[in-house]
Amino acid sequence: MVALGGNAIKRPEERGTAEEQFRNVRETCKQLLEIIRRGYRVLITHGNGPQAGNLLIQQEEARRIVPPQPLDVVGAMTQGQIGYMLQQTLKNYLRAAGLEVPVITVLTQVLVSREDPAFRDPSKPIGPFYTEEEAERLRREKGYVIKKVEPSGERPYRRVVPSPDPIAIVERDAIRRMVEEGVIVIAAGGGGVPVVKEEDGSLKGVEAVIDKDLAGERLAEVVGADIFLNLTDVEKVKLNYGRPNERPIDRMTVEEAKRYLKEGHFLPGSMAPKVIACIRFLEWGGKRAIITSLEKAIEGLEGKTGTQIIG
Amino acid sequence: MVALGGNAIKRPEERGTAEEQFRNVRETCKQLLEIIRRGYRVLITHGNGPQAGNLLIQQEEARRIVPPQPLDVVGAMTQGQIGYMLQQTLKNYLRAAGLEVPVITVLTQVLVSREDPAFRDPSKPIGPFYTEEEAERLRREKGYVIKKVEPSGERPYRRVVPSPDPIAIVERDAIRRMVEEGVIVIAAGGGGVPVVKEEDGSLKGVEAVIDKDLAGERLAEVVGADIFLNLTDVEKVKLNYGRPNERPIDRMTVEEAKRYLKEGHFLPGSMAPKVIACIRFLEWGGKRAIITSLEKAIEGLEGKTGTQIIG
Repeated sequence: MVALGGNAIKRPEERGTAEEQFRNVRETCKQLLEIIRRGYRVLITHGNGPQAGNLLIQQEEARRIVPPQPLDVVGAMTQGQIGYMLQQTLKNYLRAAGLEVPVITVLTQVLVSREDPAFRDPSKPIGPFYTEEEAERLRREKGYVIKKVEPSGERPYRRVVPSPDPIAIVERDAIRRMVEEGVIVIAAGGGGVPVVKEEDGSLKGVEAVIDKDLAGERLAEVVGADIFLNLTDVEKVKLNYGRPNERPIDRMTVEEAKRYLKEGHFLPGSMAPKVIACIRFLEWGGKRAIITSLEKAIEGLEGKTGTQIIG
Repeated sequence: MVALGGNAIKRPEERGTAEEQFRNVRETCKQLLEIIRRGYRVLITHGNGPQAGNLLIQQEEARRIVPPQPLDVVGAMTQGQIGYMLQQTLKNYLRAAGLEVPVITVLTQVLVSREDPAFRDPSKPIGPFYTEEEAERLRREKGYVIKKVEPSGERPYRRVVPSPDPIAIVERDAIRRMVEEGVIVIAAGGGGVPVVKEEDGSLKGVEAVIDKDLAGERLAEVVGADIFLNLTDVEKVKLNYGRPNERPIDRMTVEEAKRYLKEGHFLPGSMAPKVIACIRFLEWGGKRAIITSLEKAIEGLEGKTGTQIIG
């Protein structure tokens, strides 16, 4: 199970043209090809923060002409967008390497609970930054929860949405079958489209964003993955992150990971959910979880670098 | 093989809010459920014109802040968007009816030829309408082909793109396997993402739009479909369309369909590609093709209405 971080598709300093994104995706797919060449069967998930952010800005700018779509639909759109770029590029690399493996993107819904405490405390900032007046208008007109996320500046406000915990992958049966048949599947992009179960049992999208590492962990369970490879922008997880006594972690057990987490070593919304996802994976029965940078993917897999987490 | 027309998701008089689209999708899925209940195994494709149009307008409005994505990426985004709405809603109806069948959307690329004459004569209008000045600027800055599509008015210009003929479904193996396993697959939405083969054999997206009925026909071949059900906004195809001697066609052979086509009875870009898709399907080996309205889907399938086309 490979979870790709945001920088695998769009780097922070870039605006997000298709050329830039395809260039990053090529770098990412070179790493994925190397993993596949070593005989690993991979299932892939990815983030969508920058793409969803850009789409929300576009929707906002055209608001008077075209009705904006809700977050569940926006999430589905970015699954199509990023899935396409990864699917096409990875398939090209595989073919060039003489490997005729199908690669497909499966639009994925992820079940969350209406009772999830996240719905009472929206905390995940998304989309454009607003002035105080814009923030007021959106609170009034759309019922958005808007918080001041920057201490100062012209536009310090941003919409925050719930980030509920993923319970199950809705399309699990089809994904499992595909993976068993040797298909490389890209699924649950951006954490998947969050859906809740209605009283009659039907599913309905909600205005929320699921953490992609936690959704990726659920996906790992679906296919019975042995390894959970979490590719991000740092080579190793750090203890005392951001403090003078910061130091990298080469290896930690689930028990150690839990303790560090409780001690507040990892940034919420950033490294913390990655570590939580790894803990869950190992407690569920996974063999090994790795957090490392995209560039170090192979060395991480081979146990030579990255933060190795074991049961 | 069921091909859903644009009105299955967004009606012309609507602006395209998510509520409106989900409401239409529910009507559509009621029909699909009835088809499935009768024991048919279905593979689904759909149009994306209104959704792609709205997204292109949003991109245009935010052009100064966020880089617009090219048409291949826009197509992939609408596959995610519409696939999600159909997949969720159809699954809800199936579950309520006690049918536990997986429903998935597969992001689909469709191969076209660089040598396709359509690339020398772009003819498919897409996206927003422009003033003469805007048209000039976009010709100069982006190299768009822009034509006057309305005889008069403030904004008579529109971008036109090639509509090349679909050659093959790139994800055919995975789609075929899924369908064989009884999964209901939604694929090649909006005609699929058009890709061409580069000299080194790799695939690359192009700025074009593939007709969804012609792409749907290729999809029908992939799974060896018996019936090609083309659901649109009219109950029957018309002879002498738009003329005083207009009359509905109940039944036509491939030979008759070809003759009518040659005689110009069908509107290019509208009914003509639907009839061509049906002809291709029957010549490839399909048993029966039907063109009818969404509301008459069941009666059409049962041969009671619609235009029935046979070998």
